[in-house]
Amino acid sequence: MKFLLFNDFENLKIIESEMNGDFLVRVRMCGICTGELMDWYVKSKAPYTPGHEIVGEVIKSPIDKFKVGDRVFVHHHAPCLSCEYCKRGEWTACETWRKLKIYPGGFSEIISIPKNIYEVDVLRVPDFVSDEDACLIEPLACSIKAIRKANPNSYDNCAVIGLGFMGLLNSKLLKIFGVRKVIGFDFHDNRRDIAKNWAKIDEVYSPYEFNFNEKFSLIIVGPPTIEAIEFALKLADKASRIILFAPTPPSEFLKLNINYIYFNEISIIPSYSSSHEDTRIALNFISSGLIKPSDLITHKFNFDEINKAFKVARDPKAIKVIINIGGGR
Amino acid sequence: MKFLLFNDFENLKIIESEMNGDFLVRVRMCGICTGELMDWYVKSKAPYTPGHEIVGEVIKSPIDKFKVGDRVFVHHHAPCLSCEYCKRGEWTACETWRKLKIYPGGFSEIISIPKNIYEVDVLRVPDFVSDEDACLIEPLACSIKAIRKANPNSYDNCAVIGLGFMGLLNSKLLKIFGVRKVIGFDFHDNRRDIAKNWAKIDEVYSPYEFNFNEKFSLIIVGPPTIEAIEFALKLADKASRIILFAPTPPSEFLKLNINYIYFNEISIIPSYSSSHEDTRIALNFISSGLIKPSDLITHKFNFDEINKAFKVARDPKAIKVIINIGGGR
Repeated sequence: MKFLLFNDFENLKIIESEMNGDFLVRVRMCGICTGELMDWYVKSKAPYTPGHEIVGEVIKSPIDKFKVGDRVFVHHHAPCLSCEYCKRGEWTACETWRKLKIYPGGFSEIISIPKNIYEVDVLRVPDFVSDEDACLIEPLACSIKAIRKANPNSYDNCAVIGLGFMGLLNSKLLKIFGVRKVIGFDFHDNRRDIAKNWAKIDEVYSPYEFNFNEKFSLIIVGPPTIEAIEFALKLADKASRIILFAPTPPSEFLKLNINYIYFNEISIIPSYSSSHEDTRIALNFISSGLIKPSDLITHKFNFDEINKAFKVARDPKAIKVIINIGGGR
Repeated sequence: MKFLLFNDFENLKIIESEMNGDFLVRVRMCGICTGELMDWYVKSKAPYTPGHEIVGEVIKSPIDKFKVGDRVFVHHHAPCLSCEYCKRGEWTACETWRKLKIYPGGFSEIISIPKNIYEVDVLRVPDFVSDEDACLIEPLACSIKAIRKANPNSYDNCAVIGLGFMGLLNSKLLKIFGVRKVIGFDFHDNRRDIAKNWAKIDEVYSPYEFNFNEKFSLIIVGPPTIEAIEFALKLADKASRIILFAPTPPSEFLKLNINYIYFNEISIIPSYSSSHEDTRIALNFISSGLIKPSDLITHKFNFDEINKAFKVARDPKAIKVIINIGGGR
């Protein structure tokens, strides 16, 4: 079977190998995550096989719950359900969650799933859900986790900074959760247009053109930059919360005025990845038609076009790029 | 009537003046708040009349709810109950809360209470509650607000940085709320002893002697310094929250590694002051005997000893200093 070995953005190789394991899934589709486009992040991982937005088909299973041929969503991590973090419901802090993963990664014809993951966070996908939507369960789950942490309410005046794929999902979910208003910020007008037309948010601005005549009780920061967080601090109302949806490079620091956030009671709340709770909610949201993340797919490539796919994905014109590895129903 | 005019710590004057107003309270006792001992903070306010930990006696009231002679707790701020902040329950962000205050301040023989405050946050004190405890309703309320924001649970491993009066109240409340463990940090052994013996916390350390062999899911930072917050970040477990209980000077910045707090999911949550909800809870906690903040009073002075009182209050040996202005029952 073939899998991707990523060295750097100029050096993506498809390699041939054997694949063994107790629980094997033939990958049908896999999305390219925005995180996999951050230079410093992939450098810290390379050489590796990216891909964790996966829908596939079971080709080997040791348990009755899954049969050969089942179409499934596969999460790339799952918690142990019994450690101190799990007892607190902090699933993504669980050591098992952090260590165990699918092998070698989603951009592979076949992947091997460790026991803990196939027991906790492999979900059968209903027939009427497309591969395109099923492979986007994982990013939607991350968005759902952020919204759950933000705990929005009908008085919340919300700002979403960055209207890429994740910012668009966050925007749409905020509207679904009935907040008072959502204003989106992005430098690119194609993204602002989609935010208006697809996520149905109330207003959109380029950060340059906003005059700060309004403050926000809930701000979700998508772009992985210090500048985006500084912008969020300028937008923050008294008694507000800033959700950090992405990390900045490890060498960068925010110069934070504690006095300012103290007297204005601005909370800073990171939301990292998602759990088996969030993926179940995501699947339910998708199955019901509440949200259709596949609407945001702008590009679809075959596995042998993976080099081109990663190039396209780094262009702001692309919203979501997915790779068809053996699916397409 | 006499009141204090504070210029700086070397220049406290008691001044004679008339006092008019619709609702007047003769102050019985007033505590010195730790915040009123921070140089940069009082400099930004001076010349002013400090004091906002007040129990007194109504000497003039335009409403039936309060009669002349009623012994009352007086909050120095109260929300409008109808603005957008109030609708969200963010009482201390309310413009009315921020602007309206008692006049001239608690270190005064008589104070004038604006309508919004006497309607919302003046509370009759039961006979069996001492003046000493009643004047500490306000600081206890601040502690209660912080604990409510922290929302502790039985899995929480807690650290309290700084074991002054507020740190001791925070420690005791965490124990009352049934967290798994509370470890306290302070440079001064008298404070560590009180934390062990009065707040009944599990372990105490000087920050110098702690070996970081344990991480914490909930950390309350009392000291108003960048160093204390940096120490908190070192103590923070994955999926933890750091409650900022005090501001740092406005000119100081925390160099915050966003990457670190992101992947470790460390939330930073300021808790500023308290509301009419928190003061009611505080009064109930005190009335029931659940907590007795007056246990922590180390020094009591008469009003004409106010200069000495402020000097003593700045010594780490003092835990709580209160001024007897016309009370003492």
